[in-house]
Amino acid sequence: MTVSVEKKKDDRAIVVKMVLDSWKTQNARIDKFLAEVSDEQLAWPAVLGRNSALYVIGHLTAVTDGLLPILGWGIRKYPDLEEVFITNPFDIKATLPTAADVRQAWRRVNGIAEQKFGEVSPEEWFERHTSVTEEDFEKEPHRNRLNVIINRTNHQSYHLGQFALLLKKEEN
Amino acid sequence: MTVSVEKKKDDRAIVVKMVLDSWKTQNARIDKFLAEVSDEQLAWPAVLGRNSALYVIGHLTAVTDGLLPILGWGIRKYPDLEEVFITNPFDIKATLPTAADVRQAWRRVNGIAEQKFGEVSPEEWFERHTSVTEEDFEKEPHRNRLNVIINRTNHQSYHLGQFALLLKKEEN
Repeated sequence: MTVSVEKKKDDRAIVVKMVLDSWKTQNARIDKFLAEVSDEQLAWPAVLGRNSALYVIGHLTAVTDGLLPILGWGIRKYPDLEEVFITNPFDIKATLPTAADVRQAWRRVNGIAEQKFGEVSPEEWFERHTSVTEEDFEKEPHRNRLNVIINRTNHQSYHLGQFALLLKKEEN
Repeated sequence: MTVSVEKKKDDRAIVVKMVLDSWKTQNARIDKFLAEVSDEQLAWPAVLGRNSALYVIGHLTAVTDGLLPILGWGIRKYPDLEEVFITNPFDIKATLPTAADVRQAWRRVNGIAEQKFGEVSPEEWFERHTSVTEEDFEKEPHRNRLNVIINRTNHQSYHLGQFALLLKKEEN
């Protein structure tokens, strides 16, 4: 019995490492992009379809800031970012925060999330997140906290592909 | 003991579902993009940085075609695509396959991969892939087959973010 319980714990720890490593890799790539891009380039209007890269970084920051509440582990640090970058994304009259403010918020929310994730046990990652009811989770146990990170990691990759074009375009 | 073994199997099945669902979601989005984009738009030169979208779809097709050999479950169906889209990506004199050929290859390799993945047990997903030695896998059990899919899914998301810009740009 002990062996099986240990094995099960091992499995979960392995999977949590796989998913969090992937998330951290994308974060590190976004950090690298931010180190390479100037505030002026960040603010170029509509260079990424409808948006500036500053807007997209603000959007990613607001999404990461929303992770702790969704996972049931904390509250938003920057509720104002949610308003501008998630709730009303196409309000073109909205005043955006400065590049310096967005860069700082990105670092802060990301640091808070990574710290929290480092403290959590593998078992807690397999519990439900706050957008799923207990009844639904009973039937759909894949809708756990770790699944949120898989989806958010893909979301970060999606925008990273766009950032790569922004820097390549300037080279052309 | 039986309960714990069952539980362990459950955990693995849940995780495999999480990862494969995420992979299938990105595939479905690429299918949707291909349904919306014309052959002419696909061939626009250098619209995605250095590349056409046709090139990127060929690249994604060659990567998915390489999944079965990496996972130890089969051979490449289109070795020629590997040459053009992975081994020599910057050979600007290379003749690209037509849009019709790339669309067909994408559907075929994706269908083969999805079929195979549907037949494999959760346990097999937690075994090592062919790029890791047995010794390394002993120390780093997270380098399993499922981890390859997590990484490939992020790769697909990365290019999907670029495809979204291609369609938006035309609207502008």
